[in-house]
Amino acid sequence: MTYCVSMLLDSGLVFLADSRTNAGVDQINTFRKTTVYERPGDRVIVMLTAGNLAITQGVLNLLAEKLASHDPHTVNLANCANLFEGARCVGEAVREMHTRDGEAMRAQGVDFNATFIVGGQIRGEIPRLFQVYSAGNFVEATPDTTYFQIGESKYGKPIIDRVTRRSMALSEAAKCALISMDSTIRSNLTVGLPLDLVIVRRDEYKVASHVDIGPDNKYFQMIREAWGEALREAFSELPNPDWLAVR
Amino acid sequence: MTYCVSMLLDSGLVFLADSRTNAGVDQINTFRKTTVYERPGDRVIVMLTAGNLAITQGVLNLLAEKLASHDPHTVNLANCANLFEGARCVGEAVREMHTRDGEAMRAQGVDFNATFIVGGQIRGEIPRLFQVYSAGNFVEATPDTTYFQIGESKYGKPIIDRVTRRSMALSEAAKCALISMDSTIRSNLTVGLPLDLVIVRRDEYKVASHVDIGPDNKYFQMIREAWGEALREAFSELPNPDWLAVR
Repeated sequence: MTYCVSMLLDSGLVFLADSRTNAGVDQINTFRKTTVYERPGDRVIVMLTAGNLAITQGVLNLLAEKLASHDPHTVNLANCANLFEGARCVGEAVREMHTRDGEAMRAQGVDFNATFIVGGQIRGEIPRLFQVYSAGNFVEATPDTTYFQIGESKYGKPIIDRVTRRSMALSEAAKCALISMDSTIRSNLTVGLPLDLVIVRRDEYKVASHVDIGPDNKYFQMIREAWGEALREAFSELPNPDWLAVR
Repeated sequence: MTYCVSMLLDSGLVFLADSRTNAGVDQINTFRKTTVYERPGDRVIVMLTAGNLAITQGVLNLLAEKLASHDPHTVNLANCANLFEGARCVGEAVREMHTRDGEAMRAQGVDFNATFIVGGQIRGEIPRLFQVYSAGNFVEATPDTTYFQIGESKYGKPIIDRVTRRSMALSEAAKCALISMDSTIRSNLTVGLPLDLVIVRRDEYKVASHVDIGPDNKYFQMIREAWGEALREAFSELPNPDWLAVR
């Protein structure tokens, strides 16, 4: 399983992904789910992937093939004019994988399941954020949307809903994403460390920060302990219902 | 959709269920998901239901038929010797519904999906708590298990995981269940008020408290406001990551 979250803010974008992949409980591996396409000064595109690893790796390989193509008519993440084109490029790669593997997977009773977050900024545009579905179609974050989640999204959603605002600082959004990830890791064994945290500042057209967060990361350790403690404290400070016929 | 949670504690049991049922967004109705079988001084059994309403109502009707039966060999919730038998009785009713409706539902592409929480205390036993699945099989809460959830369980799980202990007071557990419900209602439109809160105190063999919590309930209003505020405060008190190359 996977949990990935990305936030679109006034000041830029925050991406956080875990790295655990599993096929049954006895086969848990670590695969990175974060891919960065960067040409500093011109564009930065970050992709997070969730779902069937064979599909998501296939999509990344098709995108890499297109990047390496010498045909000037091939649209790829390096030459797409805008991020909408970039999301379409990812969606087309998903459809190509479906054409290749969809029927054989269906014959084996395996769902064709893969979702992608694609976000970043291309010079001439504001930062944009997309979610691409298994069918290759996609949606874009609007001013009402501060985030997209893919994979095991429910455990970590309440805290994001309560604190994110477009105007929050990137480092504060990173803190929120890490708390959301912590709640998910505690509730679902198949989401696990290390984490990839990528931050893109608006109008820089490059990665501002890319951090690999493992079990030794002091800040994440602090989050894990302090957030649980803060929740328990907040919980104990709220009054119990004294109108029940019980104590 | 539905969210139901029940906690098994040293001092008794807490049950909380929402009451929203839907079949598509334009058809949202309120149906109670809480059923109480009580013979004060001898037994109290509380059932919460989730899943396909036709199945869960069918199961409740079959159980009521058995209760009304004059055949002394019919095991029902009124004469079962222990709660394990009671859970088996519920499981058998689920299987009877499957025999009646399973094939016709499959022909229409509708999942046979229904889950039940069955808990309470029968004289001669300690309080017990069971979860019955769509196949009519079931599991029992052990000393390591403080709770069962059915329905839309993920949004409200982190807070329960962090604060519940077997030794907590019933009113504190009720507060925890209500916070968990609040997080779920905020994240999923198809879970909604009114709520049914039922409390059973150990060795009383009756319902200690059964409260209908609607939008005017002052305590739940307080929980809704104060918990969000407490979370935001706890969030802002944790330091932002100053080791990122961003503010």
